[in-house]
Amino acid sequence: MGKLVIVGTVAFDAIETPFGKTDKILGGAATFIGLSASHFNVDAAAVSVVGGDFPQEYLDLLSNKNIDISGIEIVKEGKTFFWSGRYHNDMNSRDTLVTELNTLADFNPVVPQEHRNAEVVMLGNLHPIVQLSVLEQMEEKPKLVILDTMNFWMDCALDDLHKVIKKIDVITINDEEARQLTGEYSLLVAARKIHEMGPKYVVIKKGEHGALLFNNDNVFYAPALPLEEVFDPTGAGDTFAGGFAGYIAKTGDTSFENMKNAVIYGSTLASFCVEKFGTERMQNLTEGEVHKRLLQFKQLTQFEIELA
Amino acid sequence: MGKLVIVGTVAFDAIETPFGKTDKILGGAATFIGLSASHFNVDAAAVSVVGGDFPQEYLDLLSNKNIDISGIEIVKEGKTFFWSGRYHNDMNSRDTLVTELNTLADFNPVVPQEHRNAEVVMLGNLHPIVQLSVLEQMEEKPKLVILDTMNFWMDCALDDLHKVIKKIDVITINDEEARQLTGEYSLLVAARKIHEMGPKYVVIKKGEHGALLFNNDNVFYAPALPLEEVFDPTGAGDTFAGGFAGYIAKTGDTSFENMKNAVIYGSTLASFCVEKFGTERMQNLTEGEVHKRLLQFKQLTQFEIELA
Repeated sequence: MGKLVIVGTVAFDAIETPFGKTDKILGGAATFIGLSASHFNVDAAAVSVVGGDFPQEYLDLLSNKNIDISGIEIVKEGKTFFWSGRYHNDMNSRDTLVTELNTLADFNPVVPQEHRNAEVVMLGNLHPIVQLSVLEQMEEKPKLVILDTMNFWMDCALDDLHKVIKKIDVITINDEEARQLTGEYSLLVAARKIHEMGPKYVVIKKGEHGALLFNNDNVFYAPALPLEEVFDPTGAGDTFAGGFAGYIAKTGDTSFENMKNAVIYGSTLASFCVEKFGTERMQNLTEGEVHKRLLQFKQLTQFEIELA
Repeated sequence: MGKLVIVGTVAFDAIETPFGKTDKILGGAATFIGLSASHFNVDAAAVSVVGGDFPQEYLDLLSNKNIDISGIEIVKEGKTFFWSGRYHNDMNSRDTLVTELNTLADFNPVVPQEHRNAEVVMLGNLHPIVQLSVLEQMEEKPKLVILDTMNFWMDCALDDLHKVIKKIDVITINDEEARQLTGEYSLLVAARKIHEMGPKYVVIKKGEHGALLFNNDNVFYAPALPLEEVFDPTGAGDTFAGGFAGYIAKTGDTSFENMKNAVIYGSTLASFCVEKFGTERMQNLTEGEVHKRLLQFKQLTQFEIELA
């Protein structure tokens, strides 16, 4: 059973979409990554921080998915990171209404001792300094380090971001962020420039238009499953990353061909995430449902042109 | 050898892109469709109209691709349809600078007698009344009628457009046009509404994001090949339609599984079209180049997850 370290926020989210709004609900990158990776029966540990206001039932939810939560620090006198956002009608853009860092402001991540030899490390969206600190705690070089980040860190911590980008194997970012990071409009050219920054593999997430995987001259394109409606996109990117990381940790195979499968699993899991608010759809997602949707993905993308 | 009737403009285009501009060059929907369909060795006939100003060498170009041009009327005292446009920096949007209908204004299409029993009819972008007139000239119901149209006809001839949409089997339109035609943002819902208007098959072209094929509950998604740069998108949609129609005419197989292949051929051919101005890249495209890019498409999209 492969070991997987997951770093990221464990948080409260309050979400408004054209379909409704929520009070404070469970959110955070590490939460979505963990719920997604839990479909691969890997030995996962989450590294994060919450405040004394964080409900035990949310922690139990992660534990019950066999995620080691000993690396989630609980600061009794502190408050949990809180994000609130409102999606526009097209669901492709959103306004951040509230960001309260709270306990995240002074977070010093500690990787549990028994996970310091993990084969796969998934650095979810967080300050690059925190991501670097986690990497430095690993006893041996992991087989694969995956980084997810966002434009916020390009705006306010670009030098630190470049330091961590230099040390990782796979980066997952969205199309606009890839353009911002490189100054290139063509995603093919942007991916090449990101390769030169360090990562051998570049995954560019295009939301409803799917995801691209680049490795030098190899390219793979997984479309997103066309959906009747996207109910809430929150956490879809993290769920994608969690599926990708979980599949690699389970199979232990970091070949390009196997990463294609990892992208398909990530896309499949993300297609569920957007169907309900927050983590709701992911909490009780069954293996049967995942299997059925993988079949849909094959129908969606596979064709039979024989070529010599 | 399957027979294919192609209807559409044969025109002069003048194009401006961020990479440069052209004088009047060969353009038109029927031209791009014909050049693309010529890769399938079908018995194709083009139905269109040009003026006395149209160079013989352009007509020869089509003849040399084994396209029957006896259905291209030459109005000696008239001028050829002329379109001029300027693409914006993102290459996804454009301004029309000039539209001179000229001989197109009074065009009465005549399908050559020996093609009135064609198995496949490709109704390229033109006034819906002209498209309907072509259908009425067919001696027997074709095996497959494919319609391409655009927002212009939704704005100014919607009732006529609905008349022709009711009589066809496959419609190819882009994503924004599908949304305009149905008032639905979700392409899945839009496709369902278009089914209800008549066509059993709906192809939604998403430019750099690929193309979707819908048939009731069946969906297929062909991504576009990621390109370093799109030099000139003019004719890409027509080239896609020509590849789709040519492949169906060649194989005579209108099953959903075979239409997937038709979409892949259409996408492959369109990926060449955008590499140079106008028809330049398509004029001398070799079978070897097409074969090589089809292999790239397989690499791009095919994966190996075994599912029971």
